[in-house]
Amino acid sequence: MTVSKKAIVLLSGGLDSATCLALARQDGFQPVALSFDYGQRHHAELAAARRLAAASGVSDYRVLRLDLGAIGGSALTDASIDVPTEASAGIPVTYVPARNTVFLSFALGLAEVVGADDIYIGVNAVDYSGYPDCRPEFIAAFEQVANLATRAGVEGHRMQIHTPLIALSKAEIIQTGLRLGVDYSLTVSCYQADAEGRACGRCDSCRLRRQGFDAAGVTDPTRYY
Amino acid sequence: MTVSKKAIVLLSGGLDSATCLALARQDGFQPVALSFDYGQRHHAELAAARRLAAASGVSDYRVLRLDLGAIGGSALTDASIDVPTEASAGIPVTYVPARNTVFLSFALGLAEVVGADDIYIGVNAVDYSGYPDCRPEFIAAFEQVANLATRAGVEGHRMQIHTPLIALSKAEIIQTGLRLGVDYSLTVSCYQADAEGRACGRCDSCRLRRQGFDAAGVTDPTRYY
Repeated sequence: MTVSKKAIVLLSGGLDSATCLALARQDGFQPVALSFDYGQRHHAELAAARRLAAASGVSDYRVLRLDLGAIGGSALTDASIDVPTEASAGIPVTYVPARNTVFLSFALGLAEVVGADDIYIGVNAVDYSGYPDCRPEFIAAFEQVANLATRAGVEGHRMQIHTPLIALSKAEIIQTGLRLGVDYSLTVSCYQADAEGRACGRCDSCRLRRQGFDAAGVTDPTRYY
Repeated sequence: MTVSKKAIVLLSGGLDSATCLALARQDGFQPVALSFDYGQRHHAELAAARRLAAASGVSDYRVLRLDLGAIGGSALTDASIDVPTEASAGIPVTYVPARNTVFLSFALGLAEVVGADDIYIGVNAVDYSGYPDCRPEFIAAFEQVANLATRAGVEGHRMQIHTPLIALSKAEIIQTGLRLGVDYSLTVSCYQADAEGRACGRCDSCRLRRQGFDAAGVTDPTRYY
C-alpha cells in the first residue's frame, strides 16, 4: 500500500479553490486544507470552506485566525471602504494588501510542519480581478522564497507551488471541476454574501462567476438575495 | 520642512531589532514599528518591544496577533517541545517554520497601506542560530516577491528590504546600538524569559547575547533569574 504525499491546499470556499482541491486529489495528493479567518466581510465564504472540506473527505482541515483588519486598506477587511458594484480600471479596492503572500507564508510554515513539499493555490491570471499577487511571476518568486526560507532548501528537497488554474478561463475552471465532481452549490464567491451564503449578484466576483457559468453553458447553482 | 518617509520596522523586543529601529531612524525614516503576538513562550519579549517603541518615540506601533501555535512545530510556540540549553548542529528546534516569511508578508501588507516602500528586519547571518530564513539569499528572494506582490511593482516604485545587521557580529551590533543610544536594558533576548523579562542564561539566545557583550567589552545589562 502506498501512502500518498501530503499537499497543503489553500481553501477559501470559493469556486476556484474548490476546483483546486479536486485537482490536488487528482494529482494523487492527500490534501491538508487551510482557510483563513481574516476579518473578511464575506464570512459565509469560510462556512463554505468548511462544508467543502467535509464534503471532499479532507481529514486535516485547519482555520487560522489573522487580524488583517488591523492593517486595513481593503474593502474586504475595512468596513469604512465600500465594496464596488462596477468594474474599475487598475487594482480594485477589494484588493487585500499582500494577502496571497501572507496566505502562502502560512501554507509554507504548515507544509514544513506536516512534511509536505507541495502547496496548491487557486490563483488565476485570465479572468482575474487585477490583483498583482495573482500573476505567474509572483508565484515563481514566492516559490523561490519557499525554497530558501525553509528546511527544504537546506535539506535539498524542493518546495513546489502549484497553480493549476492560473491559465484557465473561469468557464474552463468550472468545466474542470464538474468533471471531477465538485459541487459548486457548496461554494460562495460573492464579496458580500449574506449569512446563508446567498450572493449579491453585483460585485466583481459575482460578475466573474456568472460570466463563467454562462460561458461554460452550465446552470449556475448560486443563490442570490 | 521635509516630512520623512515611513519605513516598517519589525520589532521583536530583542537586541537586534532594537538596534535595527535605531538604524532606520538614523537612515532618516519615520519608523512604523510592528510586533507579533504569535504564542511565543517568551512573552516578555513583546512587553520589551512595547517599552522600546515608547522609549524611542515611535508614534505608530502595532501588534498583530497570529496563531502560529496552531501550526506548531517549534519549541518557541509548541509547549510539548523543550527549549534546548545546549548548542546543536543544524537547524535547532527553536526554529519557527516560515516565521520570517510570515512576518515580512505582514510588514509588506502594512507597508502598502501606510505608503512605505521600506522594511527593516534585524536578521543576522554571522552570529546566527542556523535559521534558513536569516540568510541573505532568502532576503533577496523576498524582496523580489515584495515587488511583484504589491501595487509597488505595478506602479513602478521599488520596495526595499533593509537588513543593516546582516553582516555584523553580535559585538558590532551592540557597539552600533550603543553609539546610537539604544538602551539594551529594555531588550529581552532569552527564549524563556520570565514575566519580569529576566533571562535564563542558558538557551542559545542568552549564550549569543552574553558572548556579544563580552566581545564588545561592554557590561551586559541583562538580568537573570
